Amino acid sequence: MPDVRVVLVGPKFEGNVGAVARSMANFGLDELYLVDPCVIGDECYRRAKHGSDILDKAVTVCSMEAAVEDCFLISGTSGITTKGDRNYTRMPIPIEEFARHVSGYDEKIAIVFGREDIGLFQEELNKCDVLISIPTCDAYPVLNLSHAATLVMYELFLTDKTTRRAEPADRKEKEFMFNFFSDLMDAIGYPEHRREDTSVMFRRMMGRSIPTKYEYNTIMGILGDASKIIKNGKKWE
Amino acid sequence: MPDVRVVLVGPKFEGNVGAVARSMANFGLDELYLVDPCVIGDECYRRAKHGSDILDKAVTVCSMEAAVEDCFLISGTSGITTKGDRNYTRMPIPIEEFARHVSGYDEKIAIVFGREDIGLFQEELNKCDVLISIPTCDAYPVLNLSHAATLVMYELFLTDKTTRRAEPADRKEKEFMFNFFSDLMDAIGYPEHRREDTSVMFRRMMGRSIPTKYEYNTIMGILGDASKIIKNGKKWE
Repeated sequence: MPDVRVVLVGPKFEGNVGAVARSMANFGLDELYLVDPCVIGDECYRRAKHGSDILDKAVTVCSMEAAVEDCFLISGTSGITTKGDRNYTRMPIPIEEFARHVSGYDEKIAIVFGREDIGLFQEELNKCDVLISIPTCDAYPVLNLSHAATLVMYELFLTDKTTRRAEPADRKEKEFMFNFFSDLMDAIGYPEHRREDTSVMFRRMMGRSIPTKYEYNTIMGILGDASKIIKNGKKWE
Repeated sequence: MPDVRVVLVGPKFEGNVGAVARSMANFGLDELYLVDPCVIGDECYRRAKHGSDILDKAVTVCSMEAAVEDCFLISGTSGITTKGDRNYTRMPIPIEEFARHVSGYDEKIAIVFGREDIGLFQEELNKCDVLISIPTCDAYPVLNLSHAATLVMYELFLTDKTTRRAEPADRKEKEFMFNFFSDLMDAIGYPEHRREDTSVMFRRMMGRSIPTKYEYNTIMGILGDASKIIKNGKKWE
């Protein structure tokens, strides 16, 4: 994840500031700059939860310029997307693309969020190297401030986080299981001419579900037992 | 975008409910179910902004079951990711993957969010076809409720409906198949104390794979034949 500074310009509701701080903690960020903010009080800390230390060390400045002057890249958010490309100062790129774009940067990147009601002023937007936008429904594109910040941080977080998953079964284990499935078809006298198709179908289902080692072993045990019992003609009691 | 119902189970803070409603409006959703919620008052409406009509027509029910019974796929959120893969009932898939997975479906999908403090109970999690997770920082993975909902809706919004797929099996068909799987465990004398866990595991595997009607019928036929043969003690020749 790049080295990110979150900059809130003129936030009016302390609850939003707290919610942004919490989200920063959720996505492993800790550098918060507040430009001419509202009073930061109890409600803010209540909403911040484990992000309260981010609030404690937040830097308060009086202009956006002061908040970003030492940053390598300044990205601003704009709820307004221009249709044509003539007004290039308002032509943003989607956050997903932005996140891919900056992944691998070591330099400090500022993501700047505007006021809840009127966003960033034109002169503030003009200071941004890049404008980013969040895809939303056309009918109501105005996101809550902390929601917008959360989505941007999430996309940045995703770019270098490969989500940990339980260890999937390997190819050999899977082949074992497909064999057990074939055995079961064999045991129940499944029509010969359909076996190949059904094997492929089962393989595809498993391919989509990507079972873990544990799941494979469990399913294999059940299929295996079933065909063994049938082949041995053991009566069920 | 699939037909999505947002289900909030036991929300404690009306502000969160309002914030979720606003996000729903941002992402073009409008079906909200509340299970045993807190009082929905002024603060809720203040936070909902243009999502207030979603609140007006929200459906209040007294159990998660009642909120999802007519849904095709029930996805639950769990903040807790299990390290190993033995506790498969808590093994979620990341929201990005989930969104890709369900894109192209016309059937109703419930996304269920748990209580702010304790999430979903185990018996509620067990009713889910699939668990979804939001990648976050390990140090503080607990997201605010409306942030979590916003991220899931955003990912669903991003995927478009272009992917066409074969008709998936419906809920009743799936329940039939789960019963056949139980029958088979019964037939092979599968250890009593592991049956519930293994049933849930199988349900989750199928939830991730989203089988077509054809696949369901085929698998059901094989499981059904196997347990019938075993129960009747018919010898394999």
